Amino acid sequence: MIDVCLLGCGGSMPMPERNLSATLINYKGRKILIDCGEGTQVSMKMVAWGVKSIDIICITHTHGDHIIGLPGLLSTIGNSGRTEPLTIIGPEGITRVVNGLRVVAEYLPYEVNIIEAPSKVELNVSKDGIHVAENNEHRKIHSSEIILNAIDVDHSSPCKGYSFYFKRERKFNVEKAMANNIPKNLWSKLQRQEEVTFEGKTYTGDMVLGDERRGVKISLITDSRPMDSMVEFIAESDLFICEGTYGKDEDIDKAIKNKHMIFRESATLAKEGRVKELILTHFSPIMGEPAQFIDNAKEIFDNSVIGEDRMVRTLTYMD
Amino acid sequence: MIDVCLLGCGGSMPMPERNLSATLINYKGRKILIDCGEGTQVSMKMVAWGVKSIDIICITHTHGDHIIGLPGLLSTIGNSGRTEPLTIIGPEGITRVVNGLRVVAEYLPYEVNIIEAPSKVELNVSKDGIHVAENNEHRKIHSSEIILNAIDVDHSSPCKGYSFYFKRERKFNVEKAMANNIPKNLWSKLQRQEEVTFEGKTYTGDMVLGDERRGVKISLITDSRPMDSMVEFIAESDLFICEGTYGKDEDIDKAIKNKHMIFRESATLAKEGRVKELILTHFSPIMGEPAQFIDNAKEIFDNSVIGEDRMVRTLTYMD
Repeated sequence: MIDVCLLGCGGSMPMPERNLSATLINYKGRKILIDCGEGTQVSMKMVAWGVKSIDIICITHTHGDHIIGLPGLLSTIGNSGRTEPLTIIGPEGITRVVNGLRVVAEYLPYEVNIIEAPSKVELNVSKDGIHVAENNEHRKIHSSEIILNAIDVDHSSPCKGYSFYFKRERKFNVEKAMANNIPKNLWSKLQRQEEVTFEGKTYTGDMVLGDERRGVKISLITDSRPMDSMVEFIAESDLFICEGTYGKDEDIDKAIKNKHMIFRESATLAKEGRVKELILTHFSPIMGEPAQFIDNAKEIFDNSVIGEDRMVRTLTYMD
Repeated sequence: MIDVCLLGCGGSMPMPERNLSATLINYKGRKILIDCGEGTQVSMKMVAWGVKSIDIICITHTHGDHIIGLPGLLSTIGNSGRTEPLTIIGPEGITRVVNGLRVVAEYLPYEVNIIEAPSKVELNVSKDGIHVAENNEHRKIHSSEIILNAIDVDHSSPCKGYSFYFKRERKFNVEKAMANNIPKNLWSKLQRQEEVTFEGKTYTGDMVLGDERRGVKISLITDSRPMDSMVEFIAESDLFICEGTYGKDEDIDKAIKNKHMIFRESATLAKEGRVKELILTHFSPIMGEPAQFIDNAKEIFDNSVIGEDRMVRTLTYMD
């Protein structure tokens, strides 16, 4: 089970009734945060999922409304007693901006690692947290638990869209293990997909595990114009969180000028990407009530939903 | 008339029900902001006094809870259409921190001037805004309208307390002008306290103006331990806004360790400084309901008040 919370659904500037867009993913009690505008930690406090367990922070781009909350959150995480390293992932330029903002959060009781402009990051999960899979670790354990993919999108500054694929464990197949004559003392290691050499012979997880099972895919695109390449990137997502800065079709010129989308465009991506649900977010401050424009999305993709601050979705494996 | 609004009354981290401490002063429609933690612009939006008219921003110190909101506010002010320069005043190190934070607000449509660690700044007021008095201007016009004084206080990083003295105009005294044989064509210039040389003779405002009249004094101290020098600094303030991070007397050890005050200490300063009103602010997140400790202040200084977010005081000249 994976919980996803929209901490805020606003773009541009924080508003009394609408936090800036940020998303918190909870997986086995550990957290991945996507974007951190001013006030994100306040919304997080209201949700009360905790801050100490935030292991990964993905920043889409370095515009203030997506990153100004970072130094305050890093300080608050420090005050929570965290000592384990934390990883920040972002587009080209993220290192310079994080280091600039850290002028007010210079001394933290934990290490901050930055991965700049990756296209793919494999993540493993343990009781201690979600960790970036090291190369050598990756060689031994063939299957990382979470695959993060990043795509370059079309905004006025370098900007990344993200997708997260949470793999589902393959079932242990006793018949297969027996048929392959696998020594019983290796079963648990092979179930964890470790490669084991025993009495001169090499064994892999494939020898004891059943078929691959579909995991859960979450994808997030903000801020950007629509792009053809997004269709494949978001394909078959269980949840697609996408910017819909403007609801009205007539705002298409503004959307083109400011490198954003109108609802109809976000819904077209959702339809072409065959996602299960689209949640719209990152509403312009000039749009008081986004719900009045929902039909512009629903006409294209029926399962379109207007995001609301602290809306939660719980995603489960399907079969 | 001077309006003062406590935008927030919290310390340390922004909370759902309590913004970080920041104060907005409105004088003749122009604004002076003191401190700008994360979320300050949201509270400002609720107050709806406008952001375009903020001419001076004083930062007490560069801890995140007093400055993280700055880059977002500067951007929002930029979006408001402001093109006039804005002045930031702060303690030692302010330039480095503002420049660091501006990594997300690099391009603004107005100039940002920084005055680092001043002890006194004279301010003039025109329709265009509140301006720092230039030296040569100061020579000609003998009386700046607002005197900002700054004091070094006792915190864990360089930190300034501020006081603002809003001068009251002296009355024009016709009898005195007549008795001093002042040519009538000079009266208006002399009333504005300009020095005028006419037909070989130098005239000053003193020749036509009545006695000095008491202005309005506002002083603000956060974050600090109490200091003897504060008594003179805040003396006779119409309004003294002072940190009271802890309400309970038993928290004195925490106050000493973290360089803050308990209510009783803030009230002792208010009493010794003979201020008219003390508003307590900058409450610790661990203090859910500061009002339950108000008696600890009132026992020392009766006109002690618990600050609340967006509480407003309107100060008028007394005589």
